[in-house]
Amino acid sequence: MTPLSQEARQPLLADLPGWTPVQGRDAIQKSFTFADFNAAFGFMTRVALRADKVDHHPEWFNVYNRVDITLSTHDANGLTQRDIDLAQFIEKAAAGTAR
Amino acid sequence: MTPLSQEARQPLLADLPGWTPVQGRDAIQKSFTFADFNAAFGFMTRVALRADKVDHHPEWFNVYNRVDITLSTHDANGLTQRDIDLAQFIEKAAAGTAR
Repeated sequence: MTPLSQEARQPLLADLPGWTPVQGRDAIQKSFTFADFNAAFGFMTRVALRADKVDHHPEWFNVYNRVDITLSTHDANGLTQRDIDLAQFIEKAAAGTAR
Repeated sequence: MTPLSQEARQPLLADLPGWTPVQGRDAIQKSFTFADFNAAFGFMTRVALRADKVDHHPEWFNVYNRVDITLSTHDANGLTQRDIDLAQFIEKAAAGTAR
């Protein structure tokens, strides 16, 4: 697993609105806001189950109804297809529940 | 709900080893390490259920098997008995599973 080239990642990231590059490392981040903690943690639980199933985990911060997620592939020291795949799942999990 | 006085918090914090003051705000923090993501998120789920039940939520960051938790009472702009109560529950939830 190697980091995605700039050519490869461009169209993939174009389909992931709101995901932005992280300063100082090859990673992407997005902040999600939900109605309340119940909705936020329900979302996190769906992502957690998926993450553990595919053995690719997010870095994330939660306070009340907000969830900030950073994706990068530690083993590859950069952004890989695995991060794109997880981001696509996260978007589906957030759809309809995130504000 | 008002922040705990220095006199009141001292014995309470003495019973919460590993919880340290946060720089620049009236809050406490502790980092927990588990065997793997499954154990870390299982712990988070127990804390989440309790937090929502008592309507007092942590600020927390997770990456793989690590969970960093900060407790403070936003409404009181400081550390209150509610944070102590949640920290005590967190200790119980982590006992036997945290490294």
